[in-house]
Amino acid sequence: MNPLNPAIAATFRPPVMEARRWLEGVTFTPDRPLINVSQAAPVDPPPEPMRRAMADAALNLPDAHFYGPVLGRPELREAVARDWSRAYDGMIRPDEVAITQGCNQAFCAAMQTLAGAGDEIILPLPWYFNHKMWLDMQGIRSVGLRCGQGMIPDAAEAAKLITDRTRAIVLVSPNNPSGAEYPAETLRAFLELARARGIALIVDETYRDFDSRDGAPHDLFQDPDWRDTLIHLYSFSKAYRLTGHRVGAVIASEDRMIEIEKFLDTVAICAPQIGQIGAHWGMANLTDWLAGERAEILARRRAMSEGMATLDGWRVKGCGAYFAWVEHPFDISSPELAKRLVRDAGVLLLPGTMFMPEGDAEGARHVRIAFANADVTGIGSLMQRLAGFRG
Amino acid sequence: MNPLNPAIAATFRPPVMEARRWLEGVTFTPDRPLINVSQAAPVDPPPEPMRRAMADAALNLPDAHFYGPVLGRPELREAVARDWSRAYDGMIRPDEVAITQGCNQAFCAAMQTLAGAGDEIILPLPWYFNHKMWLDMQGIRSVGLRCGQGMIPDAAEAAKLITDRTRAIVLVSPNNPSGAEYPAETLRAFLELARARGIALIVDETYRDFDSRDGAPHDLFQDPDWRDTLIHLYSFSKAYRLTGHRVGAVIASEDRMIEIEKFLDTVAICAPQIGQIGAHWGMANLTDWLAGERAEILARRRAMSEGMATLDGWRVKGCGAYFAWVEHPFDISSPELAKRLVRDAGVLLLPGTMFMPEGDAEGARHVRIAFANADVTGIGSLMQRLAGFRG
Repeated sequence: MNPLNPAIAATFRPPVMEARRWLEGVTFTPDRPLINVSQAAPVDPPPEPMRRAMADAALNLPDAHFYGPVLGRPELREAVARDWSRAYDGMIRPDEVAITQGCNQAFCAAMQTLAGAGDEIILPLPWYFNHKMWLDMQGIRSVGLRCGQGMIPDAAEAAKLITDRTRAIVLVSPNNPSGAEYPAETLRAFLELARARGIALIVDETYRDFDSRDGAPHDLFQDPDWRDTLIHLYSFSKAYRLTGHRVGAVIASEDRMIEIEKFLDTVAICAPQIGQIGAHWGMANLTDWLAGERAEILARRRAMSEGMATLDGWRVKGCGAYFAWVEHPFDISSPELAKRLVRDAGVLLLPGTMFMPEGDAEGARHVRIAFANADVTGIGSLMQRLAGFRG
Repeated sequence: MNPLNPAIAATFRPPVMEARRWLEGVTFTPDRPLINVSQAAPVDPPPEPMRRAMADAALNLPDAHFYGPVLGRPELREAVARDWSRAYDGMIRPDEVAITQGCNQAFCAAMQTLAGAGDEIILPLPWYFNHKMWLDMQGIRSVGLRCGQGMIPDAAEAAKLITDRTRAIVLVSPNNPSGAEYPAETLRAFLELARARGIALIVDETYRDFDSRDGAPHDLFQDPDWRDTLIHLYSFSKAYRLTGHRVGAVIASEDRMIEIEKFLDTVAICAPQIGQIGAHWGMANLTDWLAGERAEILARRRAMSEGMATLDGWRVKGCGAYFAWVEHPFDISSPELAKRLVRDAGVLLLPGTMFMPEGDAEGARHVRIAFANADVTGIGSLMQRLAGFRG
């Protein structure tokens, strides 16, 4: 194939699609079905009244089918600004919110405004693979920041990694893949570091609705100058089960929105209208329902922690929201383990190598379990399968 | 704002959004409403049975709400492969089709696999502005190819522009913004040129359903080796009135699909499911309806050509599918003309400067009219407004 951009050739293939290929040729039986904890994806559709609202829009609302503004439907931008201002006790204006085709795209849009080939971005390890992939294909260098106890990154350690090519630090909290919920003081320390060094702080809060802590998880939006440094990312996919609709958001200064709009116009034109309508309906009507979803996810988290504690040799390094980052007890590398688990235990999870630099020993020793895809009973089955697996 | 990627800062703002801002503060009356011929966007929603099919999926089909495969729903990829193979009398396999969040994204995906910062891409002038914007923000140099009679580019002229940094030539047929339908022999000459020089040929056929010629518009897919050079782009937005759903397609070799999948996974995860379901339903059920749509667009094209011929000093350079590229008779530049037309004639169109390099005289002398957004009566009104406008 000719020509081929060497930056994309050097980018690894989508981990979730690679893992799906491991299922080919393996049969699962009704008494031992596949337990798929590979991808953070709600396994049920949105609640029926929300589906009805989306169906009604498809049938009766002409502008559900038309191009919308590049930065999103005004009522959704307003709802995000209002709810976020209240939740974080800060001040976010609708003009500081853009709606994207999913949160991955929100990251790409933010990054496009910040960095080009040859620049550097600091990512805590393990990273979210799609962040790493985007940076690789753009020729941007990912600089890994090893986390400490509880998988929490340390701003003082990050400071040592900043060079004159560094453009941003990216934090994901609750974290994918480690599940760690970053303390408010950690986020505050990173904001101050980034501001002092003239770089951006991107905080991806895709899983904020499932944080175990009550109240705002940080005070960054209370900073009257948050706009000079902070870029916040969000996904409607997990909270409202909208993964197939592709709706996310980015919050940033109005100045940066001018740049974000250029990217979104070119790669998206606009986010899909039906998904935006669903997200807005969900925000307006599903507050109580979402609280129940959170309680259920937190119950699964408990089941996960308690279950893992009964397993010989496995060690949970982080656990929260949808994910656990777990050290396995076997003398094989995590990709080999993952493939054997499909075949021998009917479990699909992702090896730690997908979240770590090539050759890093931590990747080989760990796996990510997207436990929130299973209910408490399913997590019990998962534990039985792992307990019975002998490597 | 700090930091700021200089490549995006140097990218111009979305033209359609800029034009919308010209409407602010201008009032339009019921007896002289705005005639908006600025954007190629169907003004009606999809036909009722298609809306019903999409609504039914939203309500009753769980996987309409779930992540789908990165490269698209299998039944839609199969339908495109089958229909395209028949329409072009060639051989296209489902694995050579990817579904994207709109055709702009199909372009970005293809380009990501081809070129990086410092590389060059040849674009006929006038170009489609989102192509130019993507190349600018990626640090890729756009090399303009001036068109000849009838706004048709010449492969021999393009050959002179190829350097060792050239990675592709991009053709849009029927063209946006000129409306030109490129002859089959032109496309064939470009394929041979690209192949001989080891670069890619991207052919964007977003407007193929409204080509005035019967049968296949080119024989490129009959070439048994098309995969070595050709990348084809398509949009479901215009044919099936799905602009708000964001569904497009790219056809390329399976090798290139591996690279395209990396990009789409990172920037999209998948195209929205409801839009894909709508597109597939449309392909299966709307063949006759689409033939009627084409006949209507062709009638509008005739009305446009005949109407323009009655106007003093205006000269149509290209006219087809949704667009006409027209030289205006006034001693003012096209952006100034466009703003005056909003205020004095209630007409919104895009100035030629949005499709040409900065400072190019051709941009100042021309405008793009997306005439297909108006019906024959509306085009009559447009002609009256333009006839009555005195600059």
